[in-house]
Amino acid sequence: QCNLTGWWKNDLGSKMRVFKVDDEGNFSGEYHTAVSSTKAPIQPSPLVGSQHLDKDGQCTFGFTVNWKKFSDSTAVFVGQCFTEDNGHEVLHTSWLLRQKVDSQHSDWKATR
Amino acid sequence: QCNLTGWWKNDLGSKMRVFKVDDEGNFSGEYHTAVSSTKAPIQPSPLVGSQHLDKDGQCTFGFTVNWKKFSDSTAVFVGQCFTEDNGHEVLHTSWLLRQKVDSQHSDWKATR
Amino acid sequence: QCNLTGWWKNDLGSKMRVFKVDDEGNFSGEYHTAVSSTKAPIQPSPLVGSQHLDKDGQCTFGFTVNWKKFSDSTAVFVGQCFTEDNGHEVLHTSWLLRQKVDSQHSDWKATR
Amino acid sequence: QCNLTGWWKNDLGSKMRVFKVDDEGNFSGEYHTAVSSTKAPIQPSPLVGSQHLDKDGQCTFGFTVNWKKFSDSTAVFVGQCFTEDNGHEVLHTSWLLRQKVDSQHSDWKATR
Repeated sequence: QCNLTGWWKNDLGSKMRVFKVDDEGNFSGEYHTAVSSTKAPIQPSPLVGSQHLDKDGQCTFGFTVNWKKFSDSTAVFVGQCFTEDNGHEVLHTSWLLRQKVDSQHSDWKATR
Repeated sequence: QCNLTGWWKNDLGSKMRVFKVDDEGNFSGEYHTAVSSTKAPIQPSPLVGSQHLDKDGQCTFGFTVNWKKFSDSTAVFVGQCFTEDNGHEVLHTSWLLRQKVDSQHSDWKATR
Repeated sequence: QCNLTGWWKNDLGSKMRVFKVDDEGNFSGEYHTAVSSTKAPIQPSPLVGSQHLDKDGQCTFGFTVNWKKFSDSTAVFVGQCFTEDNGHEVLHTSWLLRQKVDSQHSDWKATR
Repeated sequence: QCNLTGWWKNDLGSKMRVFKVDDEGNFSGEYHTAVSSTKAPIQPSPLVGSQHLDKDGQCTFGFTVNWKKFSDSTAVFVGQCFTEDNGHEVLHTSWLLRQKVDSQHSDWKATR
């Protein structure tokens, strides 16, 4: 019931694969982004995160994607799983992308 | 060089402890929040995340805090480490907090 | 060319009416929200804002909604107008909602 | 009591001037930003917004800055005024900056 294990795809065409969720709700996986703000070729990127294990199948969750294979940025996603009447599971997420900046003075523009 | 291992404290008085960062940049730890939007007693909460391992000590990082010990919410933090002239390390972070909602129709108000 | 004057409707069923946009790009209007985080009855609420007047019809814009008729909150919206191939105009927006809090110490939870 | 009329300065060194707030809480003004993500020379930029007029001097407010004099972006700010024990008035704000993008497909990266 809204165990995140498996493949997920979003509206932009990005895909993610979550490997086995453990008894604590922790998981790792791989994020295949369809979009990027850098010019370097996109690579599948490692993710780690955690989910609740509520019985009602409407768990909240979060995870971090480390873009180190082609960028010095990091993204975090937070969201909730919903089970629709037809049994389909849908994730609703929000995200923040942190770009590396030179100094604290540029901090204001580092996150989108 | 901005390895996150250790204790960190923020302006609100929240503290976090990051256990050993591994060779991939992954880590786990414990978050002791000073503030909460629920009435249940606050408990130290598990976190998992990932950081870059750049040589310049200005790494970006992200992590997820699972508040399951007293809440059905999840938070994500993303930020960057800065080393100041005096050698002090400072973290600048942004966060999103996901609260559990009843249905997709309430999704608009779930994240702050 | 993506002049905001007129009626607009969003996915949640909220509607807004923008009165005449002036030569500087300033406008006022009325926002009829379909959703609310308060229990008081929803009322049409005044808005003021500003848009660019670019010739390409893909202007960015922003506006403030003052919910004073039923709440002590304020919302801001920022976005861009897009003209689709079929001539339809679509607005993409992001928003922040500020709720009134008692003291600066509660500031962390005031905005969603 | 937390009428926004006058000059305000933030931590980054940006200044804004709010002209007279009218009986409805509406105002216009000028924003002098200290930071920019464009290379064009910074210019004072027009703002329009709205505030509550609560008696307790802790009003929420919002405003839009149109950067048209040197950019095709728009920013919105939302916040609350606090009166400190010493009588000083402090504004706490959050903001969103919308940059113009070519198409709806790039929408994901337009706002920070």
